[in-house]
Amino acid sequence: SISHFLCVFLHIERSDFPQGEMDWVAIESDSSNVQKRPELHRMMETVAQKLQLMGGTVQLVDIGEQELPDGQTLELPKVVTAQFGNDSSKHTVCIYGHVDVQPAKLEDGWATDPYNLTEINGNLYGRGASDNKAPVLAWIHAVEAYQALSMDLPVNVKFVIEGMEETGSNGLDAMIMAQRDTFFSEVDYIIISDCGWLSRRPALTYGTRGNCYFFAEVQDLHSGVYGGTVIEPMTDLIGILDTLISPSGKILIPGIREAVAPLSDEEWKMYQDIQFDMDNYKNKIGVNQLMYSNKVDLLAHMWRYPTVSIHGIEGAFSDPGTKTVIPAKVTAKFSIRQVPDMDPAMVKKQVTDYLHSVFAKRKSPNKLKVTMVIGAKPWLADTHHPLYEAGKVAIKRVFNMDPDLIREGGTIPIARTFQDVTGKSIIMMPIGGFDDGLHSQNEKMSSFSLSPRYNYIEGTKLFIAYLNEVSQIKRTSV
Amino acid sequence: SISHFLCVFLHIERSDFPQGEMDWVAIESDSSNVQKRPELHRMMETVAQKLQLMGGTVQLVDIGEQELPDGQTLELPKVVTAQFGNDSSKHTVCIYGHVDVQPAKLEDGWATDPYNLTEINGNLYGRGASDNKAPVLAWIHAVEAYQALSMDLPVNVKFVIEGMEETGSNGLDAMIMAQRDTFFSEVDYIIISDCGWLSRRPALTYGTRGNCYFFAEVQDLHSGVYGGTVIEPMTDLIGILDTLISPSGKILIPGIREAVAPLSDEEWKMYQDIQFDMDNYKNKIGVNQLMYSNKVDLLAHMWRYPTVSIHGIEGAFSDPGTKTVIPAKVTAKFSIRQVPDMDPAMVKKQVTDYLHSVFAKRKSPNKLKVTMVIGAKPWLADTHHPLYEAGKVAIKRVFNMDPDLIREGGTIPIARTFQDVTGKSIIMMPIGGFDDGLHSQNEKMSSFSLSPRYNYIEGTKLFIAYLNEVSQIKRTSV
Repeated sequence: SISHFLCVFLHIERSDFPQGEMDWVAIESDSSNVQKRPELHRMMETVAQKLQLMGGTVQLVDIGEQELPDGQTLELPKVVTAQFGNDSSKHTVCIYGHVDVQPAKLEDGWATDPYNLTEINGNLYGRGASDNKAPVLAWIHAVEAYQALSMDLPVNVKFVIEGMEETGSNGLDAMIMAQRDTFFSEVDYIIISDCGWLSRRPALTYGTRGNCYFFAEVQDLHSGVYGGTVIEPMTDLIGILDTLISPSGKILIPGIREAVAPLSDEEWKMYQDIQFDMDNYKNKIGVNQLMYSNKVDLLAHMWRYPTVSIHGIEGAFSDPGTKTVIPAKVTAKFSIRQVPDMDPAMVKKQVTDYLHSVFAKRKSPNKLKVTMVIGAKPWLADTHHPLYEAGKVAIKRVFNMDPDLIREGGTIPIARTFQDVTGKSIIMMPIGGFDDGLHSQNEKMSSFSLSPRYNYIEGTKLFIAYLNEVSQIKRTSV
Repeated sequence: SISHFLCVFLHIERSDFPQGEMDWVAIESDSSNVQKRPELHRMMETVAQKLQLMGGTVQLVDIGEQELPDGQTLELPKVVTAQFGNDSSKHTVCIYGHVDVQPAKLEDGWATDPYNLTEINGNLYGRGASDNKAPVLAWIHAVEAYQALSMDLPVNVKFVIEGMEETGSNGLDAMIMAQRDTFFSEVDYIIISDCGWLSRRPALTYGTRGNCYFFAEVQDLHSGVYGGTVIEPMTDLIGILDTLISPSGKILIPGIREAVAPLSDEEWKMYQDIQFDMDNYKNKIGVNQLMYSNKVDLLAHMWRYPTVSIHGIEGAFSDPGTKTVIPAKVTAKFSIRQVPDMDPAMVKKQVTDYLHSVFAKRKSPNKLKVTMVIGAKPWLADTHHPLYEAGKVAIKRVFNMDPDLIREGGTIPIARTFQDVTGKSIIMMPIGGFDDGLHSQNEKMSSFSLSPRYNYIEGTKLFIAYLNEVSQIKRTSV
């Protein structure tokens, strides 16, 4: 078995890796920009073709249409499902991934063209390089490696690849519900690699925060005035946004902090034991001062407390230079990361009621509209589940060390959906680096080694080893 | 003389007016967007060629370069000067105008392509249609009308047409200084038509507010984090912006309100006598409620009190849709309209000191940088000056009514510069409507009559009549 692995690993190292990643990153599959929808459709077809060429049983599943704010509808990108192997004596894993990306423009501060994958010092720079195109390709390459060496897959492998993750996985929940008793019925385990390590050490992720994303729109419909005669919508919007968070970062919306599960002694001990260098983290994210000066507080606020972030304002002047227009309709975008035991429906009510109450106190003649456009729950797993034990063994085999057991500050809403709908066990197995810059400028698939493309190549080996470890899980323990 | 006017007026009514305006509006002469600089150069050449074809003595005056925020330099658009007539027995007027425009994109909410002049119900829609391309063309057409009928101009006419007005007339002050004793030495009066009426009644404008435009930049340089570990620059920026203005619109920056000249009884009486319908104004600007419920307070706050407007934030997410990026560097743009006796140098210090003090109280680890990028003084004229008396007669002749005597809430910095540098008397004579939407979406050259292009055509007639009235001003009264 060891010799088999060596063969597979050698095959991986000889492969011309970045070409697939380069082709995929070149497709501007931005799911939040409706203008880019044809690119997104092309992305899904590219994925389906790839899996079909590999001999998989592939379907492009129609998940319907999306309603736009203006009432128009737009076709959603199809979901790609695929199956390799159908041996009922083997376990079946289902790998989830997504191939849509966040918006990216060179002028946002990218050092390279975001849609032209560029290798610098072994790192692969491009929008979607780490989130989530390379991990999806690594899983595909893992299957290809077994195939190339004419080795049987140790488990049946299914894929579910979607194209709306970055805007809330529109249509996917309904698709999972619809196929719960068909495609998902034979699945034993669900694997997600849509996250990153905490340090230079490989990690297994056992929790994610959810996300409630809000639009707060203030408008008055005025036109063509200079200041002095109307209460300007921007003044009102700034005023209400300033009531969300205290200068020290405390959330001021009543009820939000009260809903959070208290930090247990066991959790405190667990965080305390994580090898996490605060100074290193500060350097890597590029700040001089963090909100918390001790490790436990910092990790806890990254992972298991809610946060409010204000992302920007639509409708106001946002270009370089000067413009004296007084906008008549401005929409703030902000989000609240969700943790146990918060409930998005409750958060929606808390935020809406609170903003309307602070707006009412301003006695403004303008109109406020608050809408929650994404409401994704958090997710938590048991780190002693056989899936995690198998992960620890695979990591030990490939990296010769124990993994960090971590949670994720960001949101992977689908984990929670899979858990709620299918009842299957889920593991998150990241291969991206902690400073990959997901959703930011200069996103990259990092290389945490002098060896170029280290995480991408070693990550693929990890997936190969993991498929083998999962095959060893005893039936009784499912 | 009356019969001469009738000839000229008839000529104007027969002219194919909108073609010149259409050609000019089609040039995207946006002075705040450095990418559009070639268009701006083309605009200045178009103006120069037009005046040259009319037989004027024309110069394209090099006014040097502009330094960009990144330290690079960019050639400024040349200033066009022109002269028609050189008879020392006549008065010489100098007409100032600008042909650069504010930014405009269809997606900002324009009903028509902003750079394709479109006539709807007699109104001419397009960016720059009213601010300031049509008024400049109306002056040119006025000169052309005299020429077409082989009539001598009653006064010598000079033109100064610039291309940087919308971003602070960079380079123009120095050019006026340099030509004070040459081009401007023979000038008796300066005429500016870069403003609008207050109502359906024609107006003469005797004052403008100045403008101090600020950038407030907060940054931390972080990258690739989800909320919870750093104090986000957006939170800090929103926090300090919220200290500029109270919910009811009161300016909170210490020292600003104290510097304003008190409202005199005479002024109060003057405002009280203006025929201004509050409900009509509310309807026209499209709001349900104004900041002040009586006419005098409203006009005073439009014209002679300072205001703070927040225009937008650069560097934050501003597109439609959702994006969870936490921006590392955000720059707010806001401006303070200046009135007597405020001093921009003092305002710069007051704003900078105040924002740094409120920022210091937040104890944020982030960095704040405050810069004043425009500092334009207000301007006031004497409404009993012969220039204004001549204006009242010309308006009576063309419109058969007395003008509103008004001030302008916006800024025409050049009026103050002309006054300070040349010492000449200045008049502002608007022809645009009060709801032309300058700097906003759907800017238009309005028609305040069932007759199409009424303001544009009658405005041209007014300029023709005014040149004649100015020629009657006695030498001694200069």
